[in-house]
Amino acid sequence: MTRKSRAILLRRYPVGIPQADDFELVEAEVQEPRDGEVLVHTHFLSMDPAPRMRMNGGATFPPPMLLGETVGGRGMGTVCASRFEPLKVGDLVAGELGWQEYARLPGVQLRRVDPACKTPQSALGVLGPPGITAWFLTTEAGKIKAGDTVVVAGAAGSVGSVAVQLCKLAKARVVGLTGSERQAAFVRRELRADAAVDYRSSNLGSDLAAACPSGVDVFLDSVGGALHDTVMAQITDHARIVVFGFIAAYAEATTRLEYGDMYQVIRRRAELRGFLVGDYAPRFAEALRELAARLADGRIQSFEHVSEGLASAPAAFAALFTGDPVGKQLVRVRSP
Amino acid sequence: MTRKSRAILLRRYPVGIPQADDFELVEAEVQEPRDGEVLVHTHFLSMDPAPRMRMNGGATFPPPMLLGETVGGRGMGTVCASRFEPLKVGDLVAGELGWQEYARLPGVQLRRVDPACKTPQSALGVLGPPGITAWFLTTEAGKIKAGDTVVVAGAAGSVGSVAVQLCKLAKARVVGLTGSERQAAFVRRELRADAAVDYRSSNLGSDLAAACPSGVDVFLDSVGGALHDTVMAQITDHARIVVFGFIAAYAEATTRLEYGDMYQVIRRRAELRGFLVGDYAPRFAEALRELAARLADGRIQSFEHVSEGLASAPAAFAALFTGDPVGKQLVRVRSP
Repeated sequence: MTRKSRAILLRRYPVGIPQADDFELVEAEVQEPRDGEVLVHTHFLSMDPAPRMRMNGGATFPPPMLLGETVGGRGMGTVCASRFEPLKVGDLVAGELGWQEYARLPGVQLRRVDPACKTPQSALGVLGPPGITAWFLTTEAGKIKAGDTVVVAGAAGSVGSVAVQLCKLAKARVVGLTGSERQAAFVRRELRADAAVDYRSSNLGSDLAAACPSGVDVFLDSVGGALHDTVMAQITDHARIVVFGFIAAYAEATTRLEYGDMYQVIRRRAELRGFLVGDYAPRFAEALRELAARLADGRIQSFEHVSEGLASAPAAFAALFTGDPVGKQLVRVRSP
Repeated sequence: MTRKSRAILLRRYPVGIPQADDFELVEAEVQEPRDGEVLVHTHFLSMDPAPRMRMNGGATFPPPMLLGETVGGRGMGTVCASRFEPLKVGDLVAGELGWQEYARLPGVQLRRVDPACKTPQSALGVLGPPGITAWFLTTEAGKIKAGDTVVVAGAAGSVGSVAVQLCKLAKARVVGLTGSERQAAFVRRELRADAAVDYRSSNLGSDLAAACPSGVDVFLDSVGGALHDTVMAQITDHARIVVFGFIAAYAEATTRLEYGDMYQVIRRRAELRGFLVGDYAPRFAEALRELAARLADGRIQSFEHVSEGLASAPAAFAALFTGDPVGKQLVRVRSP
């Protein structure tokens, strides 16, 4: 049996915002799995900003993507051939599938998706890495408690949209930062944040001050850059700042990035910590149980936007940086 | 009774390193204390780098010194007149005396110095704010424990020299950073650090790597700037960084100062916290008891350098930034 698989390769390293020409759609024969491997038929690809920093060619963490290879990225799909005992044909799985119709990879790198779930693509959003990240950001790293004023950067995004909802459940005052007025409206109306501020607004400082009249107790920052500085200027004594991304700089070909005002850190005795969700791997199952329970009873909601077809992936990816995406951005490669 | 008091005024705001012309020695009549005040005859002035940032004229924290007024600074001396019940003539006290022979100030702002102490000027060093700072830096903010590799910036200074000794008592591996080879030798030989690196050396990165073969677990940073970045490049996962000063920048007329590489903070899941010793005020007495006990039995030592005469204060102060001072820098105004 030979199957054809379409894949999108990285043709050149983007400069700034990725362009269509940076990618190439090709077709190749599907390779059958070897011992320990499975073949997955992709249903959905997850569009996430972080892989952008692996597209600069230089030494990065995690390692850079290579030219001529399939673009890296998470996805979910169905096992269609298996030489890995625990996974059977027909099982739903999620993992690092890459931008392709068929992905062959070691079974141990895949996570099983509950087939009873009505929206299995949630395994890429609320019930996947973004949701898990939001869970540990709010419960562990940020230790959000009732009465905290929490500012969430990228509030309309896949992590931010869950984090905002979890902070509200913890009875915090939540202010979302967004990259457009449309996103800000989404954060106010759908996520029920106390306020939302478009950080491209020219009055960010005063808008933020109005939204946080007693200052910023906690800042969950995935954006960095000038936005970081503006929020830092309004933190309270002993504020907690969790940095878990640097979207403002993913398109820059450098890993040397400044992050703020030391006097403010000293003066406010602020606590700033870096966050990688992988540190919590032993507790992912626990987080997923908690998130699934809240999703099932409606205390949190999943928000998704779907682009149709593998070929739409480059534009959907670029839109993370230029557009005003709302909720989890997905590309549907094949209807299940 | 009229007494004359000599005082040093701030004549103009220094640019960069303070110069002799920035100060002026004047003589004035001593004012007798009013209700609640005492008059203190100064024995020693404490030379500390932090007041430099109050000499830039702009808005600072704490507030700037004013031109034409006595230069601010800590000191210790003898009460020679009192209208504050708890303090009697002859009592030894320490506080914000300023650069003058006689200081009139509210009694509540003074701290009593134990007259049984053989070296009462220790109230400005090991048994004063620098020692207390080192105590809470190492025990609370840095949580130094056996086996940690700790890098101490400004290791030859008043805080650093105590912090290095306390880290050694906690059985950490201690690497001191200093501004000269003479200071480095002091840190190795007298403070018994495991290593000392002159940060003006052109091989700082490789010297530091050699001194910290398994990376930097804790960084006690009072210097900032390029030094901060070099150390940050060598931190371990979950490293703790305590920033309690920014000597590199005190002579800059700005309070907007960058503090490093955000990717490194994220990648290493570092925890960076600002520190002001005032947060621990309710526990100062406890820290002083602990420090006095260690000083009494020789587990830690006091290192002081004394400049003779009030008129030597400007040069002694400038030497904090240009010279290679070792231990606590004092100016003797009057022998007790």
